[in-house]
Amino acid sequence: MRAGVGAQVLDRAAATCILALCVGCLHVIAFKSRLFTRLGRESGSTETPISYDTFYFDQKIDHFGFLEDGTFKQRYLVADKHWQQPGGPVLFYTGNEGDITWFCNNTGFMWEIAEELGAMLVFAEHRYYGESLPFGQDSYSDSKHLNYLTSEQALADFAVLIKNLKSSLPGAQQSPVIAVGGSYGGMLAAWFRMKYPHIVVGALAASAPIWQFTGMVPCGDFYRIVTQDFAKSGYNCAANIRKSWKAINNVSSTASGLQWLSEEFSLCAPLKNENDAIGFKNWLQETWVNLAMVDYPYEANFLQPLPRWPIQVVCKYLALDPAVSDYQLLHGVSQAAKVYYNYTGSSSCLNTSQTATGSLGSLGWFYQACTEMVMPMCTDGVQDMFEPEEWNFKAFSDECSAMFGVRPRADWAGTVYGGKDIVSHSNIIFSNGGLDPWSCGGVTFNITDSLVSIVIPDGAHHLDLRYSNDQDPPSVSAARALEVMYFREWIKTPQTS
Amino acid sequence: MRAGVGAQVLDRAAATCILALCVGCLHVIAFKSRLFTRLGRESGSTETPISYDTFYFDQKIDHFGFLEDGTFKQRYLVADKHWQQPGGPVLFYTGNEGDITWFCNNTGFMWEIAEELGAMLVFAEHRYYGESLPFGQDSYSDSKHLNYLTSEQALADFAVLIKNLKSSLPGAQQSPVIAVGGSYGGMLAAWFRMKYPHIVVGALAASAPIWQFTGMVPCGDFYRIVTQDFAKSGYNCAANIRKSWKAINNVSSTASGLQWLSEEFSLCAPLKNENDAIGFKNWLQETWVNLAMVDYPYEANFLQPLPRWPIQVVCKYLALDPAVSDYQLLHGVSQAAKVYYNYTGSSSCLNTSQTATGSLGSLGWFYQACTEMVMPMCTDGVQDMFEPEEWNFKAFSDECSAMFGVRPRADWAGTVYGGKDIVSHSNIIFSNGGLDPWSCGGVTFNITDSLVSIVIPDGAHHLDLRYSNDQDPPSVSAARALEVMYFREWIKTPQTS
Repeated sequence: MRAGVGAQVLDRAAATCILALCVGCLHVIAFKSRLFTRLGRESGSTETPISYDTFYFDQKIDHFGFLEDGTFKQRYLVADKHWQQPGGPVLFYTGNEGDITWFCNNTGFMWEIAEELGAMLVFAEHRYYGESLPFGQDSYSDSKHLNYLTSEQALADFAVLIKNLKSSLPGAQQSPVIAVGGSYGGMLAAWFRMKYPHIVVGALAASAPIWQFTGMVPCGDFYRIVTQDFAKSGYNCAANIRKSWKAINNVSSTASGLQWLSEEFSLCAPLKNENDAIGFKNWLQETWVNLAMVDYPYEANFLQPLPRWPIQVVCKYLALDPAVSDYQLLHGVSQAAKVYYNYTGSSSCLNTSQTATGSLGSLGWFYQACTEMVMPMCTDGVQDMFEPEEWNFKAFSDECSAMFGVRPRADWAGTVYGGKDIVSHSNIIFSNGGLDPWSCGGVTFNITDSLVSIVIPDGAHHLDLRYSNDQDPPSVSAARALEVMYFREWIKTPQTS
Repeated sequence: MRAGVGAQVLDRAAATCILALCVGCLHVIAFKSRLFTRLGRESGSTETPISYDTFYFDQKIDHFGFLEDGTFKQRYLVADKHWQQPGGPVLFYTGNEGDITWFCNNTGFMWEIAEELGAMLVFAEHRYYGESLPFGQDSYSDSKHLNYLTSEQALADFAVLIKNLKSSLPGAQQSPVIAVGGSYGGMLAAWFRMKYPHIVVGALAASAPIWQFTGMVPCGDFYRIVTQDFAKSGYNCAANIRKSWKAINNVSSTASGLQWLSEEFSLCAPLKNENDAIGFKNWLQETWVNLAMVDYPYEANFLQPLPRWPIQVVCKYLALDPAVSDYQLLHGVSQAAKVYYNYTGSSSCLNTSQTATGSLGSLGWFYQACTEMVMPMCTDGVQDMFEPEEWNFKAFSDECSAMFGVRPRADWAGTVYGGKDIVSHSNIIFSNGGLDPWSCGGVTFNITDSLVSIVIPDGAHHLDLRYSNDQDPPSVSAARALEVMYFREWIKTPQTS
């Protein structure tokens, strides 16, 4: 069963560092893993040196109830080297599902524009991630402790933190604040402006799939875009991946086939049965998705080092004629997968329980997907290169119930954040990359003069938030310039509080 | 101690019908009682016949967490006699702290304009009031059960209910919805438009003191307006009330004086000691405040029948020269109080534990004042006619802690709802009466072209929401006409969902 295909699940391995619950969760729950956010520092960029101070703010554990009156330490990072006091702007990163230092170190765009805007940078960690654990080591121990892990609580954290900073930092009282975020952080940035327009004058929501919710976009678009990325990157590339699933089924139907597959892919843990083969296919599917998100125009180093335009490199190994045998095809697939997992040749084996950086908190995102962030996805094997699978909310809900004791509320995100009906808001930039599968749930057209879309045709997942690079396509440089232009407009507005 | 003067406490007696906790709460907690909302049907009006259907909607007890996944029955009333299908507008009353049938029966304005707008009327009950009790009879049993009594949860109830109505009622899908509310219900209407602009195209916030929070308006303004109402309604009226407190102190210092006071005021429960005398003064102060709120230009029947311009009638008994004795003065005060409590002469005695209709839920509002709705108030005895008393947040907080086990968060309402910085919102009418003490916390100037203020100089508490009356001042008729004009503008906008 491949239920729960829509869950935007992040690095599952990372959870083991933090959370006991996650041990074995890969097998407990059949979510497909997604690398939602990928940022990194890489060669070719002219990286601005990073220096920040780390602070901790006492946040209410529950902003929306008064029974739980405890507090926790929310981590936030401040870089004020270029801040023009008094009243210089604040660029506020609305931290998403991971360690805030990772986002801080990798959101080069903010570091590069701080000086020209005279801006202070603040990176606020999202509760339940990194060091910002409401109940310390118990934060993930059960659904009771997880109960305060919601986007609304996170937005309230940001609001309270900013109000506190503005009242306590000399020179900050009149400072306009701009929210910046990528991926889920971009959704938060947009929602923050919608819900707290008195706190932030505007928001840059980069690669933010705010419409990837029930009934808003077709569930198959995500995988269709992944497929397109592969289809246009090499001869027969998507077609051969589409064929590969059946080839795996054929080969894995015998013990010797399983052994061959394990050896061919240099798997650390050999495949032993049909279930392992299903997990192996999920891992491969996730690999292709991850490649689509990080299909950047320059060599980059995330979890694994990757060449520039990695899908083109991958596709070289998949440029096989239709007549090849299952074994020949899967040999090509294994070579392709090793581009992602072993580009430098330093890996002795491939670990199918890991696909992304340990800086992302997978179990937290599991929980969020099982509560508010219900993002339906499906495949049909025709418009996309994956095995057909419908979106099955009931099965998804049952898995959530088994794992966390909670049931997802599929309609809630649309009710609370407005879904596609956001015209009355203002001052939000929605940037999306044409290569990024998440763009299917993003805002890719101008809604009003101040709810604007920037599409970066050659961009993958929030390329605009990354450090500039010699090999950047002109479209991303133009996007960044336009974003700064909007920022300048917004911060012209006099601040009343 | 008269701490907690800022708490907007409603009918304390009403709570005894619902809530065991409230027995004796008048003495446990020294909040001064306020009649926040007063509406009624009265002579002189040409009342539209009322007919509605009652429904119950399954609402999540907790919209902002997933541990508590239970539901409760939210009551709502629907009147669709004049509704023009498909697409006719919906006027949605955002129920406040009381039985929704009481608001429904008394918000004549909505009934009077339904036909001309082709509108459906919906009156939604606020959770924890009337029949909409999340935990049935246990709803008020302790702070754990009270934990979901917040304005945010109430707004989410409204949002979910409207989305459900629009999707389930044939012809309603394209219907624009306008939020209407008075007093706390007006605050909810305004906040609803701010937080859920995709759900309602606009809001009429009548007599909504959205700025009656910490640091937004001077704490003494409320009582200053009460005093002004009395000062201009008769010779020496406010001055004699100002003198009356010391007279009560003098007279109540002896047992015979207490007895005299009890007899003079025809109290049901005679005053026995100093504490009783303090309670007596609080009750009197509340009486003057209530009169200021309901100082309507026509005879009306709320808790008690009242004459037209009741403060003028009251003041006739207080038109005494400065040289009168304490006893003479207090005789005048007793006659004045009986205007409020015994206008028809049918009361055999005055009950100092009751000042307002039983349709309001006092204990719920106690709790809300002790959590989010912290409204600082103070008196100085100079600009107002009351005994001086500073706003003492700590004492207030301690009382809340003792009573409910919760601590108020004085800054939260401003953080979540924007305080005075609401310029980015749109389509909200803030109407206020010049006689209404709550106008001090209201929006009494235009913020933008679509955040407009309507001031009704001769109006008391949300006079505009009441049935029209032959004796209405022209200002309220003009206000209602203007409100309908804005409604027509708003409902012209095409609906996207």
